[in-house]
Amino acid sequence: MSLRPGTVFLADCPARLAIEIISTKWAVVTLFALSEGPVRHGDLVELIGGVSRKVLTQTLRRLQEHGLVDRKVYAEAPPRVEYGLTELGQTLKEPIVALTTWARVNGEAVTGFQEDSGERV
Amino acid sequence: MSLRPGTVFLADCPARLAIEIISTKWAVVTLFALSEGPVRHGDLVELIGGVSRKVLTQTLRRLQEHGLVDRKVYAEAPPRVEYGLTELGQTLKEPIVALTTWARVNGEAVTGFQEDSGERV
Repeated sequence: MSLRPGTVFLADCPARLAIEIISTKWAVVTLFALSEGPVRHGDLVELIGGVSRKVLTQTLRRLQEHGLVDRKVYAEAPPRVEYGLTELGQTLKEPIVALTTWARVNGEAVTGFQEDSGERV
Repeated sequence: MSLRPGTVFLADCPARLAIEIISTKWAVVTLFALSEGPVRHGDLVELIGGVSRKVLTQTLRRLQEHGLVDRKVYAEAPPRVEYGLTELGQTLKEPIVALTTWARVNGEAVTGFQEDSGERV
Protein backbone atom coordinates (compact mmCIF):
# COMPACT_ATOMS: atom_id res chain seq x y z
CA MET A 1 0.00 0.00 0.00
CA SER A 2 1.34 3.37 -0.96
CA LEU A 3 -1.37 5.30 0.85
CA ARG A 4 -0.28 8.23 2.91
CA PRO A 5 -2.04 8.56 6.22
CA GLY A 6 -5.01 10.88 6.04
CA THR A 7 -7.16 11.94 8.90
CA VAL A 8 -10.42 10.97 7.18
CA PHE A 9 -9.26 7.43 7.87
CA LEU A 10 -9.29 7.96 11.64
CA ALA A 11 -12.66 7.37 13.26
CA ASP A 12 -12.60 10.26 15.72
CA CYS A 13 -10.74 12.93 13.81
CA PRO A 14 -12.40 16.22 12.85
CA ALA A 15 -11.88 15.43 9.17
CA ARG A 16 -13.82 12.18 9.45
CA LEU A 17 -16.56 13.85 11.48
CA ALA A 18 -16.81 16.58 8.86
CA ILE A 19 -17.23 13.91 6.18
CA GLU A 20 -20.00 12.33 8.25
CA ILE A 21 -21.83 15.64 8.54
CA ILE A 22 -21.93 16.38 4.84
CA SER A 23 -22.09 12.86 3.38
CA THR A 24 -25.82 12.41 3.24
CA LYS A 25 -27.83 12.87 0.09
CA TRP A 26 -29.96 15.58 1.70
CA ALA A 27 -26.95 17.53 2.92
CA VAL A 28 -25.30 17.39 -0.50
CA VAL A 29 -28.44 18.41 -2.37
CA THR A 30 -29.30 21.13 0.16
CA LEU A 31 -25.80 22.61 0.10
CA PHE A 32 -25.94 22.57 -3.68
CA ALA A 33 -29.34 24.31 -3.61
CA LEU A 34 -27.79 27.10 -1.53
CA SER A 35 -24.65 27.36 -3.62
CA GLU A 36 -25.93 30.26 -5.70
CA GLY A 37 -27.34 32.28 -2.84
CA PRO A 38 -29.88 32.27 -0.01
CA VAL A 39 -33.19 30.47 -0.56
CA ARG A 40 -36.44 30.46 1.43
CA HIS A 41 -37.46 27.31 3.27
CA GLY A 42 -40.62 26.91 1.22
CA ASP A 43 -38.71 27.33 -2.02
CA LEU A 44 -36.20 24.68 -0.92
CA VAL A 45 -39.03 22.22 -0.27
CA GLU A 46 -40.35 22.85 -3.76
CA LEU A 47 -36.93 22.72 -5.39
CA ILE A 48 -35.65 19.55 -3.74
CA GLY A 49 -37.78 16.71 -5.02
CA GLY A 50 -38.69 14.01 -2.53
CA VAL A 51 -37.73 15.86 0.64
CA SER A 52 -40.28 16.41 3.39
CA ARG A 53 -40.46 19.68 5.31
CA LYS A 54 -39.40 17.80 8.43
CA VAL A 55 -36.33 16.17 6.90
CA LEU A 56 -35.31 19.41 5.24
CA THR A 57 -35.63 21.25 8.55
CA GLN A 58 -33.50 18.59 10.27
CA THR A 59 -30.91 18.78 7.51
CA LEU A 60 -30.74 22.58 7.70
CA ARG A 61 -30.54 22.51 11.49
CA ARG A 62 -27.60 20.09 11.43
CA LEU A 63 -25.79 22.24 8.88
CA GLN A 64 -26.52 25.30 11.04
CA GLU A 65 -25.20 23.60 14.15
CA HIS A 66 -21.92 23.03 12.37
CA GLY A 67 -21.66 26.57 11.10
CA LEU A 68 -22.17 25.77 7.43
CA VAL A 69 -25.58 27.36 6.95
CA ASP A 70 -27.24 30.36 8.51
CA ARG A 71 -30.83 31.40 8.83
CA LYS A 72 -31.97 34.96 8.41
CA VAL A 73 -35.37 36.25 9.39
CA TYR A 74 -36.57 39.41 7.67
CA ALA A 75 -39.15 41.47 9.51
CA GLU A 76 -41.77 41.47 6.81
CA ALA A 77 -45.39 40.45 6.89
CA PRO A 78 -45.42 37.51 6.75
CA PRO A 79 -41.82 37.17 8.03
CA ARG A 80 -39.42 35.99 5.37
CA VAL A 81 -36.97 33.26 6.42
CA GLU A 82 -33.99 32.53 4.24
CA TYR A 83 -31.20 29.99 4.49
CA GLY A 84 -27.77 30.62 3.06
CA LEU A 85 -24.19 29.42 3.23
CA THR A 86 -21.99 30.95 5.92
CA GLU A 87 -18.41 31.92 5.16
CA LEU A 88 -17.40 28.42 6.29
CA GLY A 89 -20.17 26.92 4.17
CA GLN A 90 -18.85 28.79 1.13
CA THR A 91 -15.69 26.66 1.34
CA LEU A 92 -17.87 23.68 0.43
CA LYS A 93 -19.20 25.21 -2.77
CA GLU A 94 -16.43 23.92 -5.01
CA PRO A 95 -16.42 20.30 -3.75
CA ILE A 96 -20.22 20.12 -3.72
CA VAL A 97 -20.55 21.57 -7.21
CA ALA A 98 -17.86 19.12 -8.39
CA LEU A 99 -19.82 16.23 -6.90
CA THR A 100 -23.19 17.25 -8.35
CA THR A 101 -21.62 17.95 -11.74
CA TRP A 102 -20.10 14.47 -11.62
CA ALA A 103 -23.55 13.07 -10.79
CA ARG A 104 -25.17 14.88 -13.72
CA VAL A 105 -22.52 13.69 -16.15
CA ASN A 106 -22.20 10.11 -14.90
CA GLY A 107 -25.59 9.44 -13.31
CA GLU A 108 -26.87 7.31 -16.15
CA ALA A 109 -23.71 5.22 -16.33
CA VAL A 110 -23.80 4.66 -12.57
CA THR A 111 -27.46 3.78 -12.27
CA GLY A 112 -27.72 1.79 -15.48
CA PHE A 113 -24.56 -0.21 -14.94
CA GLN A 114 -25.02 -3.97 -15.01
CA GLU A 115 -22.27 -5.91 -13.30
CA ASP A 116 -20.45 -8.56 -15.36
CA SER A 117 -21.41 -12.09 -14.56
CA GLY A 118 -17.88 -13.09 -13.61
CA GLU A 119 -14.90 -11.64 -11.89
CA ARG A 120 -11.69 -10.81 -13.61
CA VAL A 121 -9.01 -13.26 -12.52
CA MET B 1 -34.82 32.20 -6.77
CA SER B 2 -32.22 32.30 -9.45
CA LEU B 3 -31.49 28.59 -9.32
CA ARG B 4 -31.24 26.80 -12.61
CA PRO B 5 -32.97 23.46 -12.70
CA GLY B 6 -30.57 20.62 -11.99
CA THR B 7 -31.37 16.98 -12.11
CA VAL B 8 -29.98 16.30 -8.63
CA PHE B 9 -33.12 18.13 -7.50
CA LEU B 10 -35.41 15.53 -9.08
CA ALA B 11 -36.10 12.53 -6.87
CA ASP B 12 -35.94 9.84 -9.54
CA CYS B 13 -33.29 11.17 -11.87
CA PRO B 14 -30.02 9.30 -12.43
CA ALA B 15 -28.06 12.26 -11.06
CA ARG B 16 -29.94 12.15 -7.74
CA LEU B 17 -29.59 8.38 -7.54
CA ALA B 18 -25.86 8.72 -8.20
CA ILE B 19 -25.64 11.21 -5.32
CA GLU B 20 -27.46 8.73 -3.09
CA ILE B 21 -25.02 5.96 -3.94
CA ILE B 22 -21.88 7.89 -3.09
CA SER B 23 -23.16 10.16 -0.30
CA THR B 24 -22.43 7.94 2.67
CA LYS B 25 -19.39 8.39 4.85
CA TRP B 26 -18.21 4.85 4.13
CA ALA B 27 -18.52 5.27 0.37
CA VAL B 28 -16.62 8.57 0.46
CA VAL B 29 -13.83 7.22 2.67
CA THR B 30 -13.61 3.94 0.73
CA LEU B 31 -13.45 5.69 -2.64
CA PHE B 32 -10.76 7.97 -1.24
CA ALA B 33 -8.82 4.95 0.04
CA LEU B 34 -8.84 3.52 -3.49
CA SER B 35 -7.96 6.81 -5.17
CA GLU B 36 -4.25 6.04 -5.38
CA GLY B 37 -4.58 2.49 -6.60
CA PRO B 38 -5.95 -0.97 -5.74
CA VAL B 39 -5.94 -2.07 -2.10
CA ARG B 40 -6.55 -5.44 -0.48
CA HIS B 41 -9.69 -5.97 1.58
CA GLY B 42 -7.70 -6.63 4.75
CA ASP B 43 -5.63 -3.51 4.23
CA LEU B 44 -8.79 -1.44 3.76
CA VAL B 45 -10.17 -2.71 7.06
CA GLU B 46 -6.96 -1.65 8.78
CA LEU B 47 -6.74 1.67 6.98
CA ILE B 48 -10.33 2.81 7.50
CA GLY B 49 -10.79 3.37 11.22
CA GLY B 50 -14.10 2.33 12.71
CA VAL B 51 -15.36 0.24 9.81
CA SER B 52 -16.30 -3.41 10.34
CA ARG B 53 -15.45 -6.07 7.77
CA LYS B 54 -19.16 -6.52 7.14
CA VAL B 55 -19.91 -2.85 6.51
CA LEU B 56 -16.84 -2.49 4.33
CA THR B 57 -17.89 -5.53 2.29
CA GLN B 58 -21.38 -4.08 1.87
CA THR B 59 -19.94 -0.71 0.85
CA LEU B 60 -17.61 -2.30 -1.69
CA ARG B 61 -20.39 -4.49 -3.07
CA ARG B 62 -22.67 -1.51 -3.61
CA LEU B 63 -19.88 0.39 -5.38
CA GLN B 64 -19.19 -2.71 -7.50
CA GLU B 65 -22.85 -3.08 -8.43
CA HIS B 66 -22.78 0.45 -9.78
CA GLY B 67 -19.61 -0.06 -11.74
CA LEU B 68 -17.43 2.23 -9.65
CA VAL B 69 -15.18 -0.40 -8.07
CA ASP B 70 -13.89 -3.72 -9.30
CA ARG B 71 -12.51 -6.73 -7.52
CA LYS B 72 -9.57 -8.71 -8.79
CA VAL B 73 -8.58 -12.11 -7.54
CA TYR B 74 -4.98 -13.14 -8.05
CA ALA B 75 -4.26 -16.86 -8.13
CA GLU B 76 -1.71 -16.90 -5.38
CA ALA B 77 -1.54 -18.95 -2.23
CA PRO B 78 -3.38 -17.66 -0.32
CA PRO B 79 -5.40 -15.94 -3.07
CA ARG B 80 -4.92 -12.19 -3.14
CA VAL B 81 -8.07 -10.08 -3.53
CA GLU B 82 -7.75 -6.43 -4.45
CA TYR B 83 -10.30 -3.70 -4.92
CA GLY B 84 -9.73 -0.78 -7.25
CA LEU B 85 -11.54 2.00 -9.08
CA THR B 86 -12.97 1.14 -12.49
CA GLU B 87 -12.68 3.59 -15.36
CA LEU B 88 -16.04 5.02 -14.27
CA GLY B 89 -14.85 5.11 -10.68
CA GLN B 90 -11.80 7.11 -11.74
CA THR B 91 -14.15 9.95 -12.72
CA LEU B 92 -14.93 10.31 -9.00
CA LYS B 93 -11.34 10.78 -7.95
CA GLU B 94 -11.30 14.55 -8.34
CA PRO B 95 -14.59 15.28 -6.52
CA ILE B 96 -13.79 12.81 -3.73
CA VAL B 97 -10.28 14.17 -3.24
CA ALA B 98 -11.74 17.71 -3.20
CA LEU B 99 -14.22 16.66 -0.53
CA THR B 100 -11.68 14.91 1.71
CA THR B 101 -9.23 17.78 1.31
CA TRP B 102 -11.99 20.15 2.37
CA ALA B 103 -12.65 17.91 5.40
CA ARG B 104 -8.98 17.92 6.40
CA VAL B 105 -8.71 21.69 6.09
CA ASN B 106 -12.06 22.59 7.67
CA GLY B 107 -12.78 19.63 9.95
CA GLU B 108 -11.88 21.45 13.13
CA ALA B 109 -13.91 24.52 12.25
CA VAL B 110 -16.92 22.35 11.40
CA THR B 111 -16.81 20.10 14.44
CA GLY B 112 -15.82 22.76 16.93
CA PHE B 113 -18.34 25.32 15.81
CA GLN B 114 -20.67 26.57 18.52
CA GLU B 115 -23.86 28.12 17.24
CA ASP B 116 -24.65 31.66 18.36
CA SER B 117 -27.36 31.97 20.92
CA GLY B 118 -29.56 34.12 18.72
CA GLU B 119 -30.52 34.48 15.11
CA ARG B 120 -29.53 37.33 12.89
CA VAL B 121 -32.57 39.45 12.14
